[in-house]
Amino acid sequence: MDAVSVIRTKRDRGELSDEQIDWVIDAYTRGEVADEQMSALAMAILLNGMNRREIARWTAAMIASGERMDFSSLSRPTADKHSTGGVGDKITLPLAPLVAACGAAVPQLSGRGLGHTGGTLDKLESIPGWRALLSNEEMLHVLDTTGAVVCAAGDGLAPADKKLYALRDVTGTVEAIPLIASSIMSKKIAEGTGSLVLDVKVGSGAFMKTIEDARELAATMVGLGSDHGVKTVALLTDMSTPLGLTAGNALEVRESVEVLAGGGPADVVDLTIALAREMLDAAGLKNVDPAKALADGSAMDVWRRMIAAQGGDPDAALPTSREQHVVKAPSSGVLTRLDAYGVGVAAWRLGAGRARKEDPVQAAAGIEMHAKPGDTVTEGQPLLTLHTDTPERFAYALEAIEGAYDVAAPGTEFAASPVVLERIA
Amino acid sequence: MDAVSVIRTKRDRGELSDEQIDWVIDAYTRGEVADEQMSALAMAILLNGMNRREIARWTAAMIASGERMDFSSLSRPTADKHSTGGVGDKITLPLAPLVAACGAAVPQLSGRGLGHTGGTLDKLESIPGWRALLSNEEMLHVLDTTGAVVCAAGDGLAPADKKLYALRDVTGTVEAIPLIASSIMSKKIAEGTGSLVLDVKVGSGAFMKTIEDARELAATMVGLGSDHGVKTVALLTDMSTPLGLTAGNALEVRESVEVLAGGGPADVVDLTIALAREMLDAAGLKNVDPAKALADGSAMDVWRRMIAAQGGDPDAALPTSREQHVVKAPSSGVLTRLDAYGVGVAAWRLGAGRARKEDPVQAAAGIEMHAKPGDTVTEGQPLLTLHTDTPERFAYALEAIEGAYDVAAPGTEFAASPVVLERIA
Repeated sequence: MDAVSVIRTKRDRGELSDEQIDWVIDAYTRGEVADEQMSALAMAILLNGMNRREIARWTAAMIASGERMDFSSLSRPTADKHSTGGVGDKITLPLAPLVAACGAAVPQLSGRGLGHTGGTLDKLESIPGWRALLSNEEMLHVLDTTGAVVCAAGDGLAPADKKLYALRDVTGTVEAIPLIASSIMSKKIAEGTGSLVLDVKVGSGAFMKTIEDARELAATMVGLGSDHGVKTVALLTDMSTPLGLTAGNALEVRESVEVLAGGGPADVVDLTIALAREMLDAAGLKNVDPAKALADGSAMDVWRRMIAAQGGDPDAALPTSREQHVVKAPSSGVLTRLDAYGVGVAAWRLGAGRARKEDPVQAAAGIEMHAKPGDTVTEGQPLLTLHTDTPERFAYALEAIEGAYDVAAPGTEFAASPVVLERIA
Repeated sequence: MDAVSVIRTKRDRGELSDEQIDWVIDAYTRGEVADEQMSALAMAILLNGMNRREIARWTAAMIASGERMDFSSLSRPTADKHSTGGVGDKITLPLAPLVAACGAAVPQLSGRGLGHTGGTLDKLESIPGWRALLSNEEMLHVLDTTGAVVCAAGDGLAPADKKLYALRDVTGTVEAIPLIASSIMSKKIAEGTGSLVLDVKVGSGAFMKTIEDARELAATMVGLGSDHGVKTVALLTDMSTPLGLTAGNALEVRESVEVLAGGGPADVVDLTIALAREMLDAAGLKNVDPAKALADGSAMDVWRRMIAAQGGDPDAALPTSREQHVVKAPSSGVLTRLDAYGVGVAAWRLGAGRARKEDPVQAAAGIEMHAKPGDTVTEGQPLLTLHTDTPERFAYALEAIEGAYDVAAPGTEFAASPVVLERIA
C-alpha cells in the first residue's frame, strides 16, 4: 500500500477500498503519509466525490484514530447538537442549558471561529473567567452536576480529523461534502452521544450555498449517524441573513442571555425551541415542553450553573467595544435584504474572528443589527452599529457591508422565509 | 494574493490570471507557498486543465524562477532533442554524436530514470569513469570542443520546475498534460537551445497511452516553443513495444555503440536517423545526410571524444550481470506482442531503475530481447534474457513479464506499426 496508488485511484474516479481508506488515515495520523500527499487526495475527493460506503469507512477510520468517550455512567440520556456554522449563530448558548433543564445531558464539544463564521468557544470566552479547556474528568463532572457542558474537544478525539481539518483549511479543500460530513460525524460519534441533531445551514453565510448541497450533506450525515447507532436528525435552516440581531462574541452572549430571560429576537427563540424539541425527542424525552423551561427560568438557572462550573461569572459585565461606527439607512422603505456573508465578513474584519488559527479575537468586536429583512426603516435611522477596539478596521469592514443590504420603496411586499426549511431523518 | 484563493480558482474550473500564476510559482520557489498547497493546486490542474494562455504563463514563470543559459558564443547552431521517456529508449546516445558529426552543437541536459522508464544519465554512468555532473563552464567547453554534451541540468535552471517535479512524483500528479508540457519546455527554453525536436512516445510503455493525449501534449509543447522563439517540431513515436533489443543501462550503451558502428536494430537506427534529420533541419543544416555520418564512422568519432571529455573510457569493458535468467518461447509461432510496460517494469525490478530518487541503479541489470513483434519463434528458444546482480529479484521481475508477450500460431499475419507515427510542427 502506498500513498500514490491511493491518490491515483481517486484521481481516476475509482472507488477507494476499505483497506486503502484504513491505511491512508492511519498512515497520515502517524506521519507516514505526508501533508502534500493528503492534500492532493483531498482535492481529488473534492472533485471526484466518494460514495456512501467510502464515506462511512473514512469516518470509521477517523474515529479509530483516537479514543472514544463514554457517557453511559450518566443517569440522563445524552443529546447533542451540531451546527455547520453561520453568522450570528449563538444557538448553542441558550439551547444547551434549555435542553438540560428539560432532562437531557448535553455534551457540547465546540470549536473556535475560522473565517467569517463565529465559534461558540470564542463567544463564551468573552465571559470573565470562563474557560474552554477541561479534562475529560472535569467535563463529565460539569455535565453530571449541571446537565450541560460546552468545552473544547480533547486532543485524543479523532486526531486524524484534527490534522486533516487544519490541512484542508490551507489547501482549498474545505468544501467537500464527504470530508465535511466525515469530519463532523467522526468527532460526534467518538464523543459518544446517544442522539444528535444537526443544524445544517443554507445560504450566503453558510458553507452550503444551495439547498441541494445542504440536503446532500444532511442526508450523508444522518446516514453516518444511523450506521454507528447514533439517532440522528437534521434540520436545514436559513442562513441567507444573520440569526438574531448580533454577530460577535460578547454581543452574542448578551443576546443569548436575553433569550434565556424569556426575550430576544423571534428567529433565535424559534430556532432554539425547534432544535430543543428535536433533541429531546431524539433522546426519548417526549413529554417535556422547552418553551415552558424558557418561560419559567429553569433554563436560565442551568446556564448560570454551567457558566459558573467552568470558572465564569454569570453576573459579570461583558466587555464593550472602545469604538463604534453607525451605518444609517440610505432611504426610507423596507429592508429587503441583509446578507449573512457580508455581515459575517464585516464582523470578522472588525476583530470578532481570526485570519489564522493562532490569532486572538476581540471579545467586544462585532455588529449590532437594528433592523431585519421585512422591517420598515426611515432614512438616516441606524441600520447597523459596528463595534471594535481597533478603529482602523472600520474602513475594511465597511467594504464588506457595502452592497450587503437593500432598502426598497415603502410598501414593497416582503415574503419572509421561515428559519427551518426542511427536516431530514 | 494567497495560495487558497489561487487553488479555489482552479478547483472551481476558473482561469488563473497571469498575476496568480506569477505569484504562485515565485512564492512556491521561495517556500512561501507550502508543498501541501502546491500539490492540491497540481491535482486541481490535473483534473480541471489549463488553457493555452495559462500554460504559456506557467512555463514563463518557471523559466523566470532561475537562470538562463546562452549558447550564442558557439560557432555552430544548437539543436536539442527531448524524449518523453520510454522503455529501451537509448536514442540520445547515438543521436547526440551523430547530429554533432553533421555540424550542429547538441546540448543534452538529461535526467535519471524514475519508475519503469530509463534515464540517459543512468545509462552513460555504466561507462567506467564517465561523470554526469558538469559546471556550466565545463559543459560549454565539452560542447564547443566535441560538438555534443550529455549531462545533468544544473541547479540554477528552472528551480521551480525541479521542486514541482519532485512534488508531483509523490502526489499522483505526474500525468497532467499542462504540467508535463511546462516542465519539459521550461527547462529546454531556459537552457537556451535554438531549435528543439520532441520525441513524444505513445503506447503502454509511455506516459501518454493514447495518440490523442500524445497529440495534445505535442501540440502544447510545439506552441510553447514557438511562443518563446525556439523552433520546435514533434514526432509521435510508437512505445507499445520496447525500442531495440535491450532495456537496461550497460545493455543499452552496448546497443548504442553497435548503432554508431553501423549496425544495431533497425527500429533504433531508423528513429535515430529520423530524429537527426529533424534536428538538422530545425537547426538550418539542410544539406547533410546523417545516414552517411553513421556509415563513415564520423558519428562514432564524436561519441568517443564526447565520452572521453567527461572522464569516460570509450574502450573500457562495460559491466556485465552476475546472474541471468532465460525466458523461453512457450510455443512455436509468431511473436505478436511484446509489451513495453511489462518489459520496462521487469527491467526496473531487476535493478535497472529506482523506486526512490535516492536509490542507486545496477549498471548491468536489465533485459535482452531475442525477438521482436513480427518475428518467428520456435518453442523453447530464448525469448528474453533477464540480467541482475541480485537474483532474488528474478521472481518479482518475472511477474511483470508474465502476460507481457503473445506467441500466435505459425503463419499468423502480423502488421508491424511504423516507429514514427505522426509529425507535429
